Amino acid sequence: MKKAVVLLSGGLDSATVCLVAKQQGFAVYALSFSYGQRHNCELDCAKKIAQTYAFAEHKIANIDLTIFAGSALTSNLPVPKNNYKQNEIPITYVPARNTIFLSYALAYAESIKAYDIFLGVNAIDYSGYPDCRPQFIDAFASLANLGAALYSEGDQKLQIHTPLLKLSKADIVRLGFVLNLDFSITNSCYDPIKKDDKIYACGACDSCFLRQKGFAEAGIVDTIIKIV
Amino acid sequence: MKKAVVLLSGGLDSATVCLVAKQQGFAVYALSFSYGQRHNCELDCAKKIAQTYAFAEHKIANIDLTIFAGSALTSNLPVPKNNYKQNEIPITYVPARNTIFLSYALAYAESIKAYDIFLGVNAIDYSGYPDCRPQFIDAFASLANLGAALYSEGDQKLQIHTPLLKLSKADIVRLGFVLNLDFSITNSCYDPIKKDDKIYACGACDSCFLRQKGFAEAGIVDTIIKIV
Repeated sequence: MKKAVVLLSGGLDSATVCLVAKQQGFAVYALSFSYGQRHNCELDCAKKIAQTYAFAEHKIANIDLTIFAGSALTSNLPVPKNNYKQNEIPITYVPARNTIFLSYALAYAESIKAYDIFLGVNAIDYSGYPDCRPQFIDAFASLANLGAALYSEGDQKLQIHTPLLKLSKADIVRLGFVLNLDFSITNSCYDPIKKDDKIYACGACDSCFLRQKGFAEAGIVDTIIKIV
Repeated sequence: MKKAVVLLSGGLDSATVCLVAKQQGFAVYALSFSYGQRHNCELDCAKKIAQTYAFAEHKIANIDLTIFAGSALTSNLPVPKNNYKQNEIPITYVPARNTIFLSYALAYAESIKAYDIFLGVNAIDYSGYPDCRPQFIDAFASLANLGAALYSEGDQKLQIHTPLLKLSKADIVRLGFVLNLDFSITNSCYDPIKKDDKIYACGACDSCFLRQKGFAEAGIVDTIIKIV
């Protein structure tokens, strides 16, 4: 069985990507990060997703991104509410985060001899993040095929799959629905509350805004719990 | 004063690169990694170097590379002794290590608004490491200028400096000597012993072999301590 490393945050997008990889016949080696994110409870979701869909392996890498200041996702800066703007780099941008995440995915892939990495970047809704653009993904694939022993020496190159790249959030919701994704075990909120082992989404951050809009447009009911 | 992020392992090469950056008029923001390396005492050297030469800042990022199996530098696999072979990928190769290190340097640079990264890769003696090749470094610069907000949006691009790229180890020793580098506070050994606050080099691993050869060819006396 072909192996694929899939970046799994615990959110709707990455969970959907895992199921896409599975459907394409890959054994899923999921990789999550504990990086000092304030929405650390997304890792509970990641674990639950990995168990529910019986992935081949699930690793959580402990990495420190808090030493670099500046993002609302890794500091005490407030997460903006009711403030979504397309085509603008938001305060929740973490410097070089996708570059770091992909570097780890590369290390993981090389160490298990996988030739495929999947990730849930999206160029539509997240046009404000420069590291979600297709050119960036292509540049990373070139880098990997030069810099990693397995791919630079051998005949088979590393492929980076971004099945959500050109999908709207509504398309992603529909895709997750078709692949039988249990939406209730995913978290998208940047500022969730965990209480009695349940996760409550704030319903007002950029990410909640996009999720709600996506479900509404798809005409599908979301099964997560929101703060009322 | 221009800021530069410099990757500092605590070895001869990276210490020399820090002094090159300083000489070129940069304020040095040194970045080291605690990544589960068996030669963790190189971090003591890195701290000592940062203090001795009064760098603007020195950060040590805690990152976990041990979750990916396979390298003698991050596991219990024995470090090969008296076994140096050029043009071969050695067992001390850590999957995607330079890609991960550069990603962190990029995050650091972006967060302090630096436009320059220095690192001590070398394509002569370490031709066995694919992530030390000039094409790899160029590919990383392209990636950074696409994927990081500061460089992709602004006029000024990120530059990656590799002043040691085409130098032999003897050249590096001479350069360090000219820049008044205190060799005794650097460590190159992959398998050192720490005793009574002193670090002893094994004198037999690939890295010790190259260091000794370099000093001999340069006609300069090394001031580190070796296991007798």
